Amino acid sequence: MKKQLGVAVVGAGYWGPNLVRNFRASPDWDLVAVCDLDEQRARKVIGPRSTVVAESSFERLLERDDIDAVAIATPAQTHASLAMAALEAGKHVLVEKPLAPSVIDAAVMVEAARDADRVLMIDHTYCYTPAVQYIAQTVQSGTLGNIMYIDSTRINLGLVQPDVDVFWDLAPHDLSILDFILPGGLNPVEVSATGSDPLRVGNACVGHISLTMRDGSTAHINVNWLSPTKIRQMVIGGSHRTVVWDDLDAQRRVAVHDRGVDLAFGRSEDERQAARVSYRLGDITVPALTEKEALSSMVGEFADAIRSGRPARTDGAAGLRVLSVLEAVSESLAARGKPVAPHQYTNALAFRSAS
Amino acid sequence: MKKQLGVAVVGAGYWGPNLVRNFRASPDWDLVAVCDLDEQRARKVIGPRSTVVAESSFERLLERDDIDAVAIATPAQTHASLAMAALEAGKHVLVEKPLAPSVIDAAVMVEAARDADRVLMIDHTYCYTPAVQYIAQTVQSGTLGNIMYIDSTRINLGLVQPDVDVFWDLAPHDLSILDFILPGGLNPVEVSATGSDPLRVGNACVGHISLTMRDGSTAHINVNWLSPTKIRQMVIGGSHRTVVWDDLDAQRRVAVHDRGVDLAFGRSEDERQAARVSYRLGDITVPALTEKEALSSMVGEFADAIRSGRPARTDGAAGLRVLSVLEAVSESLAARGKPVAPHQYTNALAFRSAS
Amino acid sequence: MKKQLGVAVVGAGYWGPNLVRNFRASPDWDLVAVCDLDEQRARKVIGPRSTVVAESSFERLLERDDIDAVAIATPAQTHASLAMAALEAGKHVLVEKPLAPSVIDAAVMVEAARDADRVLMIDHTYCYTPAVQYIAQTVQSGTLGNIMYIDSTRINLGLVQPDVDVFWDLAPHDLSILDFILPGGLNPVEVSATGSDPLRVGNACVGHISLTMRDGSTAHINVNWLSPTKIRQMVIGGSHRTVVWDDLDAQRRVAVHDRGVDLAFGRSEDERQAARVSYRLGDITVPALTEKEALSSMVGEFADAIRSGRPARTDGAAGLRVLSVLEAVSESLAARGKPVAPHQYTNALAFRSAS
Amino acid sequence: MKKQLGVAVVGAGYWGPNLVRNFRASPDWDLVAVCDLDEQRARKVIGPRSTVVAESSFERLLERDDIDAVAIATPAQTHASLAMAALEAGKHVLVEKPLAPSVIDAAVMVEAARDADRVLMIDHTYCYTPAVQYIAQTVQSGTLGNIMYIDSTRINLGLVQPDVDVFWDLAPHDLSILDFILPGGLNPVEVSATGSDPLRVGNACVGHISLTMRDGSTAHINVNWLSPTKIRQMVIGGSHRTVVWDDLDAQRRVAVHDRGVDLAFGRSEDERQAARVSYRLGDITVPALTEKEALSSMVGEFADAIRSGRPARTDGAAGLRVLSVLEAVSESLAARGKPVAPHQYTNALAFRSAS
Repeated sequence: MKKQLGVAVVGAGYWGPNLVRNFRASPDWDLVAVCDLDEQRARKVIGPRSTVVAESSFERLLERDDIDAVAIATPAQTHASLAMAALEAGKHVLVEKPLAPSVIDAAVMVEAARDADRVLMIDHTYCYTPAVQYIAQTVQSGTLGNIMYIDSTRINLGLVQPDVDVFWDLAPHDLSILDFILPGGLNPVEVSATGSDPLRVGNACVGHISLTMRDGSTAHINVNWLSPTKIRQMVIGGSHRTVVWDDLDAQRRVAVHDRGVDLAFGRSEDERQAARVSYRLGDITVPALTEKEALSSMVGEFADAIRSGRPARTDGAAGLRVLSVLEAVSESLAARGKPVAPHQYTNALAFRSAS
Repeated sequence: MKKQLGVAVVGAGYWGPNLVRNFRASPDWDLVAVCDLDEQRARKVIGPRSTVVAESSFERLLERDDIDAVAIATPAQTHASLAMAALEAGKHVLVEKPLAPSVIDAAVMVEAARDADRVLMIDHTYCYTPAVQYIAQTVQSGTLGNIMYIDSTRINLGLVQPDVDVFWDLAPHDLSILDFILPGGLNPVEVSATGSDPLRVGNACVGHISLTMRDGSTAHINVNWLSPTKIRQMVIGGSHRTVVWDDLDAQRRVAVHDRGVDLAFGRSEDERQAARVSYRLGDITVPALTEKEALSSMVGEFADAIRSGRPARTDGAAGLRVLSVLEAVSESLAARGKPVAPHQYTNALAFRSAS
Repeated sequence: MKKQLGVAVVGAGYWGPNLVRNFRASPDWDLVAVCDLDEQRARKVIGPRSTVVAESSFERLLERDDIDAVAIATPAQTHASLAMAALEAGKHVLVEKPLAPSVIDAAVMVEAARDADRVLMIDHTYCYTPAVQYIAQTVQSGTLGNIMYIDSTRINLGLVQPDVDVFWDLAPHDLSILDFILPGGLNPVEVSATGSDPLRVGNACVGHISLTMRDGSTAHINVNWLSPTKIRQMVIGGSHRTVVWDDLDAQRRVAVHDRGVDLAFGRSEDERQAARVSYRLGDITVPALTEKEALSSMVGEFADAIRSGRPARTDGAAGLRVLSVLEAVSESLAARGKPVAPHQYTNALAFRSAS
Repeated sequence: MKKQLGVAVVGAGYWGPNLVRNFRASPDWDLVAVCDLDEQRARKVIGPRSTVVAESSFERLLERDDIDAVAIATPAQTHASLAMAALEAGKHVLVEKPLAPSVIDAAVMVEAARDADRVLMIDHTYCYTPAVQYIAQTVQSGTLGNIMYIDSTRINLGLVQPDVDVFWDLAPHDLSILDFILPGGLNPVEVSATGSDPLRVGNACVGHISLTMRDGSTAHINVNWLSPTKIRQMVIGGSHRTVVWDDLDAQRRVAVHDRGVDLAFGRSEDERQAARVSYRLGDITVPALTEKEALSSMVGEFADAIRSGRPARTDGAAGLRVLSVLEAVSESLAARGKPVAPHQYTNALAFRSAS
């Protein structure tokens, strides 16, 4: 059996307890400490009759030799400074989404991790669900043909928040999934977003995002905090097959539809006729997916990446790409839907000169 | 029993047979003739052992004294000339959607019907479903509170057509429903549309429309010809309650959710805090709806309007409002989503001076 | 094009209009007449502006030369006498279920048809749905392996009737489907039925039937008139695969589950251990089924059988087998669930000596 | 805050970890020890960095002063001896289902607990779900009218077990729920059960139970280990309203249907006519249920019962009633469905003389 890696969870708020539970249950990890400015809160997350350390000082935490990695689940605006300090102390770092409050901060973090030769991973939890893992493999194997369009709906009664709108709260899930399943990662030419704030809370509570990809395909994301009915559905339409993922249908979460529209002949100008379009009404296949908690796979991937000295599957650059699109969404929203091209920190890694 | 009204169905193509079947079965109507340039086609729709007249001449049809009304189910570009001739001949007119190929034609038709004191009705079939009738009543009774947002999805494998895009094919359904249920009818300030044509058939096959209403509420419509999975769903989110209409769920088509977000106090700048937002998790009510074919109710409404000398519930003006939005959609689509204000023929009835 | 066969529908009550509609629309058939003791009722079913004959005399009907076949949709107690007269007059006969009021009557009908060399068909409508046709083919091709159990649920608010219980009203559907899909037809060793009449209407309104087949497999049927929720589901569990048919799920009516329990080794006494049982969690396949109205296929099969001089796929013998089980159900019900062996008229065709 | 009660979980197998997790998280309880013959297994359930005691001796466990109660999650055949020893040591006892391997053992346990004035509770987990709590309240408030029938389906691919059949594995859930929601508890006149073992594993894998209640109402339970599709549904049909509980539909788990059949007049012999039966097609109401883990409520109830000195809501007598029906099921199964009257230990508490 491999030696366990020591880890500390930083932030005992909403998400921290989930990380604590999964690190605790993982054979790869030894949960050494939980850190929170409020030591009582840390202690409460640890629970009774435990020798896990409740720590209120992040500095003291970083001085410990029995900690190889920290998992940061604090408010977004603190991510950059905590992560930079941890990297500097030689720790591997897992960060909750969003990676940082701004693209520029995120780019600095990515570079710092590279320079320190440490793993910087973002907790894009959904990417570790069996469904998304299966979809990514299906898309990348070419089974679907060319991706034509993607349509994602993520709506239900959500916590209206004072400091974040529905785009920054919910769309990172969809964007991180797109980044994970699309062969070249998330890299749209243009982003357009419209939203509304019918309750006058100061932030958009209902929103729509349209993305135009480099190959001409499109993606659309519908996020909504006010819907009493819960929908978590994504359609990935390919030229050969189409995947429908309904995350709330436990028995048929993913379905591959061998149905679609075929063009019988060529595509020259005079052949654009309905008569040439035929329909393929093939079978639907619902693959057998194992049930495994995503966070459990995620903490396993974190350990694997550290041990192999390779980037995590959802590394800092992935977080950076998502953040870059989110900033473009905000810019487009402010301009009532004007198309905006996201900054290209991502591929070119031009952030060095930019910063 | 009231005397039956004589009717002829014009056009024996895709939709004509449905009209034939419903006029035939209605106690209000006597189906006298079916008219098509191709008399054999008309005869086939009539079926064997019948004395219903198969007529190939629209002129001869209009000369008949036993016909009070004509139902026009021919291609859209012929609607205006056929309807104008019928009105001139003193017939009442039912027209399939869209009312006319252009707003200007439609406006002329509306005025001609008014001048001739004849009923001009548009077959917005969905408005006559028990579900939409119930929703309209619920919205207009104030049960939902203020409408905050509407989200409509109408996707499935559809016939890719050479002369019409997915917006003109599918969105008229959604727009006509909005026109029917919104207290002031369909009258948006601004329309924005994006679409894509991943098959390169020459027309958008996937599309999204955003509408901004005069009261600040928004509506969004998602139409798609390429989806292998069929969805027909509309969410009407109100400040008090929200209606979810799933047209494919025969047992729970309409659900009224007494759930939502409440703002505890005022809405002044410094009160915009999550703490002030509370959630109402009330019951869901699924009303008992009678099962009745919409077209049957529609032909009944046509007869009632004629007999009472009143406009039909979906009159020419409704068709004109929908058409006006569709033209704005096309304009916005061409400008990659630029917001466009629809022409205001509708309310002002300024078409007289415009024509 | 083949010459059309002349047909008359007898009985203008609940089911007659459906037969009228389908014979009318079929290229195989010429609907010549509708016969009912109440001529006005017949005329109403025919509808206006039609030259189809409304006939009130069954004798006159049988004298017509332009009628090749009659479809009998009258109350069950009249089926035998009408069918016998029609066969005697040289007509082919289609009968609504149940074939006759008693097994003995039904057996006489089957023999009469054979002697007269006419087609005697029973309208087991469900057997002509694309779903059941697919299931029958799947079962008989061996794809499922050995059938282990079948579970059928057919419940919803139904018309409580004075002269028939829920078993005779609903279970014929399930039994006729079993007869159609099982390789050897419906031929159980034993039948057990329990029911209750909580409303005290005089007949069971809720019921359960258990059937034990000759190969040791079992079937269970749950029928209920009082359920506010509608379920039409059948599970056919095989040793290799299992079919789930949900007739109300239009988009996924039939699903073939490649899931089940495997026994790893032999089955000797000491090997009966959980450790030897393994689970196969394979994919689910939802086959593409064409949408076609069952009654349309049924009237087509009636014409084909007549033209080919072969028995219909649901012939009189099928009706007899179902009836034989229904009588056993009634006998078991009266004895509070005592197992009853159905009479073996079916296979032995011992009805000749019995009559 | 109330002083915590000390508890030990006995048995670190399948269910033990769930109890450990819930006692640990409960403010009412201090989890002192986990006991298993295999100390390593106990330690593994406790997890790393914990001071909870791993104990391999049940005797030593009972000697501890810091333990007020034990939760027994060992194999069924050990329940009686462990529980008797614990009661003798003055501990309160929670037992997994089934309460004991036989009714006679269970009756002795119930009496022992009464004599020792300790709480003897059975972990009928489902009774502590928000759904069952709501249903019990609805039934007992009279909202449904008289219960006419109950139909429960609990099927999916289950672990085929060598020492227990599908009835003893799954039906205790259904029976314990019936016991909880029926005003007088579970007390049927007669039980009939049929089952089959198509895999020849030595135990029934598919089964049906019919129960006849004292008021003439009926209940039916369908259990199946071989079904690839998972169904957890219960219909409780009342004379006024009917509840449908679909445990897999997270968004609409419970629905109260205001639909049914009304008898217009009296029920005298000559009034039993369909004409007198009318249908009520009222609304469906889906109540808002809080999401709360059942085991969490269950351990809370255990603490409350101890502190208040009252029987738990699912006390030993409830476990005894369920066991009594299970024994009758086995007896009927052996006699191929013969109706069997369960022993009446339950109400009469005649077990004293019986033992």
